[in-house]
Amino acid sequence: MKLYDENMPAPNPRRVRIFLAEKGITIPLVNVSLAKAEHKAPDFLTKNSLGQIPVLELDDGSTISETVSICRYLEALHPTPALFGTTPKEIGLIDMWIRRVELQLMSQIGNVWINSHKYTEKYAEKYGIKRFPDFGEESAKRAVGRLHWLDGDIAGRDFIAGDTYSMADIAALTVIDFAGFIGIPIPERCDNLKAWHERVSARPSAQA
Amino acid sequence: MKLYDENMPAPNPRRVRIFLAEKGITIPLVNVSLAKAEHKAPDFLTKNSLGQIPVLELDDGSTISETVSICRYLEALHPTPALFGTTPKEIGLIDMWIRRVELQLMSQIGNVWINSHKYTEKYAEKYGIKRFPDFGEESAKRAVGRLHWLDGDIAGRDFIAGDTYSMADIAALTVIDFAGFIGIPIPERCDNLKAWHERVSARPSAQA
Repeated sequence: MKLYDENMPAPNPRRVRIFLAEKGITIPLVNVSLAKAEHKAPDFLTKNSLGQIPVLELDDGSTISETVSICRYLEALHPTPALFGTTPKEIGLIDMWIRRVELQLMSQIGNVWINSHKYTEKYAEKYGIKRFPDFGEESAKRAVGRLHWLDGDIAGRDFIAGDTYSMADIAALTVIDFAGFIGIPIPERCDNLKAWHERVSARPSAQA
Repeated sequence: MKLYDENMPAPNPRRVRIFLAEKGITIPLVNVSLAKAEHKAPDFLTKNSLGQIPVLELDDGSTISETVSICRYLEALHPTPALFGTTPKEIGLIDMWIRRVELQLMSQIGNVWINSHKYTEKYAEKYGIKRFPDFGEESAKRAVGRLHWLDGDIAGRDFIAGDTYSMADIAALTVIDFAGFIGIPIPERCDNLKAWHERVSARPSAQA
């Protein structure tokens, strides 16, 4: 098994690294240079037709992409410590929170990053991707609204999906750290979210 | 257990209905009227702080939202027929395809629906949601591109994630039917996708 990836602060590669650290699993890494557009090379497109990293290549040569799916595959092989839940209710709630973090929060942060952040301007030009700066700016406001919603919802519990650390915390940590990196920090009065952020950032896996 | 939902052609409610039909499970339905804004009422917000349907209420009073998470919970209770896979590889690939369908295709269709479709204009006005029509129109073009990509990727296999029907087919069917409903049909030369669409639409569950 090997993981095609690049060692970047971006949320996706970091998710898998944190997951591996929590599980105590090591997988050989093959570096794919985004700067050299290696993820768009014909050979790489046979591994992931979307031309995205990370990609996990199994021993039979088949491939799995999408960070959460890679982690889910690894969880099926290495069930403990369980990060996707073990009871039906835990499984449902952790999945719900992974989705909420992605569909409510990550989607807005992604809209900002792609449409109105200065770092992606040249990339968009190079690949002919149309940008919508007004939409990006509105998405930044919406993202702040979602951070407030998340802060309110997690009141009274230690982790995103309940009383134990899970994949939902990994999803949220990587998104929230990336949001901070692009200029959308945890808002001032979001004390629940700040306490949660300290709690999960203190785990050794957060350094991965 | 009960399901708060509304009997609509929208992709989300329909997903759970198809899943239940494939599993042969019946759950009492509590109708939530979107027209009467019952999903935004204070009592309903205690069930889902996002004010969205469907929501599954468990016998202990706790709730799970997000269609795929509701189905994942039900799969844990009723493992056969398996719609999320049984081997680690199947589990990984089906999850990857659910995500690809949502993140690559549904996201674009949603952008069109929210930003440039005439049906949502009044709703946006009523709730003060800013629309970005140019972005919506660009998303429609991107959605067509993603349909071509999907058509190419599924060449040689009967179902979205492999040789057996899975949750990924339910996700894709509901999204593609909704896309057709809002004016983005399967493009002319997408023969793989058309054959797949006939195949999954012929299953009794597609009427759910």
